[in-house]
Amino acid sequence: MSTDGNSGLQLPSLIKKSGELEISLVNVPTKEPSADEVVVRIEATPINPSDLGLLTGAADMTTAKASGTRDAPVITAKVPEGAMRAMAGRLDESMPVGNEGAGVVIRTGSSPAAKALMGKTVAIIGGAMYAQYRTVAASDCLVLPEGTSPAEGASCFVNPLTSLGMVETMRREGHKALVHTAAASNLGQMLNKICLKDGIGLVNIVRSPQQAEILRKIGAKYVVDSASSSFMADLTNALAETGATLAFDAIGGGKLAGQILTCMEAAISRNAKVYSRYGSNVHKQVYIYGGLDTGPTELNRTFGMTWGIGGWLLFQFLQKIGPDAIKLRQRVVSELKTTFASRYTKVVSLQEALQPSEIAVYAKRATGEKYLINPNKG
Amino acid sequence: MSTDGNSGLQLPSLIKKSGELEISLVNVPTKEPSADEVVVRIEATPINPSDLGLLTGAADMTTAKASGTRDAPVITAKVPEGAMRAMAGRLDESMPVGNEGAGVVIRTGSSPAAKALMGKTVAIIGGAMYAQYRTVAASDCLVLPEGTSPAEGASCFVNPLTSLGMVETMRREGHKALVHTAAASNLGQMLNKICLKDGIGLVNIVRSPQQAEILRKIGAKYVVDSASSSFMADLTNALAETGATLAFDAIGGGKLAGQILTCMEAAISRNAKVYSRYGSNVHKQVYIYGGLDTGPTELNRTFGMTWGIGGWLLFQFLQKIGPDAIKLRQRVVSELKTTFASRYTKVVSLQEALQPSEIAVYAKRATGEKYLINPNKG
Repeated sequence: MSTDGNSGLQLPSLIKKSGELEISLVNVPTKEPSADEVVVRIEATPINPSDLGLLTGAADMTTAKASGTRDAPVITAKVPEGAMRAMAGRLDESMPVGNEGAGVVIRTGSSPAAKALMGKTVAIIGGAMYAQYRTVAASDCLVLPEGTSPAEGASCFVNPLTSLGMVETMRREGHKALVHTAAASNLGQMLNKICLKDGIGLVNIVRSPQQAEILRKIGAKYVVDSASSSFMADLTNALAETGATLAFDAIGGGKLAGQILTCMEAAISRNAKVYSRYGSNVHKQVYIYGGLDTGPTELNRTFGMTWGIGGWLLFQFLQKIGPDAIKLRQRVVSELKTTFASRYTKVVSLQEALQPSEIAVYAKRATGEKYLINPNKG
Repeated sequence: MSTDGNSGLQLPSLIKKSGELEISLVNVPTKEPSADEVVVRIEATPINPSDLGLLTGAADMTTAKASGTRDAPVITAKVPEGAMRAMAGRLDESMPVGNEGAGVVIRTGSSPAAKALMGKTVAIIGGAMYAQYRTVAASDCLVLPEGTSPAEGASCFVNPLTSLGMVETMRREGHKALVHTAAASNLGQMLNKICLKDGIGLVNIVRSPQQAEILRKIGAKYVVDSASSSFMADLTNALAETGATLAFDAIGGGKLAGQILTCMEAAISRNAKVYSRYGSNVHKQVYIYGGLDTGPTELNRTFGMTWGIGGWLLFQFLQKIGPDAIKLRQRVVSELKTTFASRYTKVVSLQEALQPSEIAVYAKRATGEKYLINPNKG
């Protein structure tokens, strides 16, 4: 490992045609910055659910085996045969991992914009962040305010922009309040802080009393537990009170998305004057943005004809809103230590991230467990 | 039964709190036309799937029993307990049936617009058409061209505007070709005629070789059979050839909607250069506009993140496009005997429509079986 930044470790994920996942560390030369580029020494990069999707793919991590050395660990695991079809596009191709991160600019290209970043702590997005060094366009760097550490700025994009994107989608599509599932997550807590600050009604759906407690502690008003026997009634009441007709669902599989639509329709119908067998004419929408449950989505369609379900993807949303995305980024920076503060349960090196004992913890995607990688640790 | 039009028979459907459906004929006074209204003697009104939804509701028609007399028949049937919740909005309320129809104006209000319609054959939409007389606004009457019979004009709205609405939705939402399920229906045949005439790619999904044959005979190019073992491959090929990324699904329940999205994604991915675990960035949409299968919709979500499913309702679509709806109506009138011609397997009176032997046929909603009611027959 060099310390001059000319080369550094990177963490790629490979799924072979044979059905084997292999995660390892490789030493790669750092790309020389062109005039408008800079080299960032990555010091903090989170393990988000969206990163795990690429890191472990469809592999069954309970089959994970460690080999290699302490400095160059290798993890292998089996991809179940039935899941291989979904992996077709990435077979035998080494995929660098890590959507976002933060670090310090250690070398720059010749342009004034690039030079101005020398020594600055910046946040970046764009993949391959599980690496010691990353060469990126100067214009892609979000300069963090003085006194902000890379760890504090590591999660500037995915969770903050996703939660702001949900609120922005609500406004653009004419809804007045929101529903969120898996609501006690880091992202869910952020969304609560935004909605409390902006005065937006938010119905939080969690899966245990413990998760409900996490949200109540940060001031959440509407928290319903899908494991409770009164779930449907509780949800309908919360929807009637908030008027929420838009939901963001991180779970995807099972009946939850359909149950949300059913309860929305029931809440709306409380004030219905005239019977229509097509249901109310109020549009009810669920966006699935995650897949914590990879099983099928089941809709019983007891919610009339005025509804929609669809996928929601941050990158496409940002593309759609174009220049307006800048306002969202500015808000993230100005509220980085409050609304958008992330909590991590552990900071690990790249080598530690490939220890089976650590993988066993972070690959569960359990609410409250969140890892940060410091590729230049120790 | 009077023949002066001062009163006439009407067919209401009633679902009682006790869980019993009752369909009968009642004699009602004809509403006196106000200045801008006319009285139409209804001579043809079709039994569309959308009418059956109101006529029989969630009742199990295999339990149907006949009573009353030949002139005043009464049909009763049981609504399964589990289906009663969906009927909550209409319990103990007599619902007149019949979305659309055609007939002759026999009396008018005093306004010039109303008077101008005297003796004309007109088509109308607006409910309660399973009746001998109907008083409606003159402005709601679509005057049929000379030489058009009420039977020829009975289905001027639901099927023609639905099929035109599908094509119009395709254009407005930026798709270039269409998929249609239960495609051998009256509506599906109309859609084929429109697409052939307008040069639009249409992938027809049917459920038997017989249905495929019906469509091939009228010139359909892409017909795939969901009962065939090569269905998924056939559908993917047709989607790749047409570039269809929008589907209208009359079935609703089961796996079909999800299969369509899966095949669309597979067709798009044939030309993919770069792997993205979120799938392609091409939006794929399925609109469910019917419920031939009332079971749950099951989506296995093997089609990336850029997709949507939702309900589609003619009335809301027409409301959304506002004045542009006039152009669609004009096209229906000018192509009434060609593109928008409907075929009926039987013409029945109101009394005959309540014979158990007839109900057994039309309540099956079988492709190719379509009834027309003439409330003033014999």
